[in-house]
Amino acid sequence: MINIALLGYGTVGSGFYEILKNNKNKIENIVKEKIKLKHILIKDLNKKRENLEDKSILTDDFNKILMDPEVDIVVELIGGEQAAYQYITNSLKKNKIVITANKLLIAKHYNQLLALAENNDTHIYFEGSVGGGIPIIKAIREHLAGDNIQEIDAILNGTTNYILSIMEEKTISMKETIQKAQEMGYAEQDPEEDLEGYDVLYKICILANLAFDISVNPEDIPCKGIKGITSYDLIYASELGYKIKLIASIKNINNKINIGVRPNLVEKEEYLASIDGVFNGIEVYSRYSQKLSFDGMGAGKYPSANAVISDLIEAAKTIKENKTKMDLNPLEKTTTFDLHAYLEQSFYIRIQIEKDDQTINKIKEIFAEKDLAELFFKDNKTETPLLPVIIITKKIREDKLEKIIKKIESLKGVLTINNIIPIKDTVI
Amino acid sequence: MINIALLGYGTVGSGFYEILKNNKNKIENIVKEKIKLKHILIKDLNKKRENLEDKSILTDDFNKILMDPEVDIVVELIGGEQAAYQYITNSLKKNKIVITANKLLIAKHYNQLLALAENNDTHIYFEGSVGGGIPIIKAIREHLAGDNIQEIDAILNGTTNYILSIMEEKTISMKETIQKAQEMGYAEQDPEEDLEGYDVLYKICILANLAFDISVNPEDIPCKGIKGITSYDLIYASELGYKIKLIASIKNINNKINIGVRPNLVEKEEYLASIDGVFNGIEVYSRYSQKLSFDGMGAGKYPSANAVISDLIEAAKTIKENKTKMDLNPLEKTTTFDLHAYLEQSFYIRIQIEKDDQTINKIKEIFAEKDLAELFFKDNKTETPLLPVIIITKKIREDKLEKIIKKIESLKGVLTINNIIPIKDTVI
Repeated sequence: MINIALLGYGTVGSGFYEILKNNKNKIENIVKEKIKLKHILIKDLNKKRENLEDKSILTDDFNKILMDPEVDIVVELIGGEQAAYQYITNSLKKNKIVITANKLLIAKHYNQLLALAENNDTHIYFEGSVGGGIPIIKAIREHLAGDNIQEIDAILNGTTNYILSIMEEKTISMKETIQKAQEMGYAEQDPEEDLEGYDVLYKICILANLAFDISVNPEDIPCKGIKGITSYDLIYASELGYKIKLIASIKNINNKINIGVRPNLVEKEEYLASIDGVFNGIEVYSRYSQKLSFDGMGAGKYPSANAVISDLIEAAKTIKENKTKMDLNPLEKTTTFDLHAYLEQSFYIRIQIEKDDQTINKIKEIFAEKDLAELFFKDNKTETPLLPVIIITKKIREDKLEKIIKKIESLKGVLTINNIIPIKDTVI
Repeated sequence: MINIALLGYGTVGSGFYEILKNNKNKIENIVKEKIKLKHILIKDLNKKRENLEDKSILTDDFNKILMDPEVDIVVELIGGEQAAYQYITNSLKKNKIVITANKLLIAKHYNQLLALAENNDTHIYFEGSVGGGIPIIKAIREHLAGDNIQEIDAILNGTTNYILSIMEEKTISMKETIQKAQEMGYAEQDPEEDLEGYDVLYKICILANLAFDISVNPEDIPCKGIKGITSYDLIYASELGYKIKLIASIKNINNKINIGVRPNLVEKEEYLASIDGVFNGIEVYSRYSQKLSFDGMGAGKYPSANAVISDLIEAAKTIKENKTKMDLNPLEKTTTFDLHAYLEQSFYIRIQIEKDDQTINKIKEIFAEKDLAELFFKDNKTETPLLPVIIITKKIREDKLEKIIKKIESLKGVLTINNIIPIKDTVI
């Protein structure tokens, strides 16, 4: 008998409960052992819970779980930071296997949690933390373990991808789209973590740790969310053959690693441009497998819960087989990690200027120098004295571009620099 | 120390050798054990082999490998049937772990080989047998083990996908394209197994065994390759918004399983239509993960070799951990397997008729009945007395369609039924 404690009965937690209930025989046949869900930790014992058969397994006291020597596996699905951190570390110290989908904790405490598991002869699994239903952790950790990953480009947040898809499709404002997404259950009531890109940041840090054998602190990674992207940007980008996507990337440039989260213009023919709505998509470039792409539901009750179930099956097998050591790649981090591995990229720049020939000519002059960019003047022929200008630069280092932008900003007649968005490219 | 014997030093075999050589330290760090390639079985000891460092490990005598008690893992990469079957079964009987990319053997002897491994307390791994560099076996066997797969649609053969892509792009004949593919190394000198669809048939049978817990004999599965597809079909399909792809599919229709290999018209916006050239793509629909897609290089030296390397890492860990039993899903096959689970599909039909009003009207009449199809008369306004007609049917069972086709065939003025191709659809 393998005993499980589930922490949290929210969206993914209740999904996990349902799959375990519906497919219990199937799962027990695979692991060749009986599985029992012995405790569910919740905050409010009185809250109504549909689908829950046996209310006697509910508890609001984590210590009851921690001190139960029969509990082999703790499944942490409450999310958040402090409480979850305490539950996970204490469970590992009691030699219990931990399964979690908590991207924030794994990203922030990757090395510490893995070491804690190893030192206590136990394991921590986290397939549900990145990519929702997509088995990307397994692919990197196992399938590509003997390969050399060179680059990862990914859409890792269903909420922002949904918002950008709807804004483009219906030409409505971000504010209105967010409300719609909240009504559909695709955005949290407080969507800041998604909009600011932090959710993606945690996920790409986890992939970087796994793929490049480095130790990454999320705080060191440049991160920009989708706030500031307007319908104008989506329309102008579309006219030029691009979609706008929130792209997380890890690029190995001469053994320096560049990691970032940022909206990108993506050519419509590219794979990641085809990933719409709440889907996630991940491209992995490696020395031997060359190019692999994965897509699936990036969030949602059941896809994420199934990722947790797949960890449960692996964890249960581990117990059956008396494995006693983590089988992750070794923890020694060796690769040089240099955030200043500058990329040469093309950029989309949207500015607003006064509709007068002198300003137009000055901007033309600045960019004509060295054939630096193509300019598109979006004259709508109306009486407004404002002229939107779209600039698509040639490949340039961003620090050099910033100097040019300063020059433009200081021109008489230049009103606003609305947006600077890189155009997605692969180093490979 | 873990000792390996490699059987075969062809494309994938030499790729395996190179990855193992280049990433030896990395792989040994992961499995926490030294790995030694002790023997390579080849046919001709005198053939020149670039890149091979230590010629002394070459042998043309399989018994030397079989009788070496130090050999823990046998990596079978010679392909073909008889010899490989002997090598694999004998190795399993000697309790050696077998890794193979031999789709034909795994498809034809799935249950027998798995049982043989289990009965001899050893394992057989075959990630390289399906999808080249794509970790599809791992995804189905592990990630989706606790889920319920409902449908798989896939492009599983790089050669035919390349041929169809080039024929469409350049509007050249299949014969000419095959020559080109052979020159590029994308097609075998004898490409029959690819062209007839058998290569795909073996692969989809392996996936069916894994995904649906059924026991499938390749000979029972309807299989049609790409022979007979002409540039005309590609052009007419394209005009109507479709590409033509060789699609393997497994569909669960009310617990009856329909498996098939056949060219399909695929809407240009669909995921599988975007898989061009030598790439493979696989869509998996399941109850909980909903939809997952995977694509990558479907063949080639290194992508397939990396799949074998990933098996090697898993096998080596197994040895380290003293696992003694197969951890595949149980062998009891329970699902009803009924090949007569008829689908309702739309079909593309190309026929050639005499350019006269009577024939045209008779065909219109047949299809007008019950609003059965749209007809496109491809009149090229030249003096030729022939008229190609494209028919796109509504959804219909193929056995019913066949009766209508018979009626059309018997009409005066109908010269040839050139092609009948289903239009890809998902049951889900």
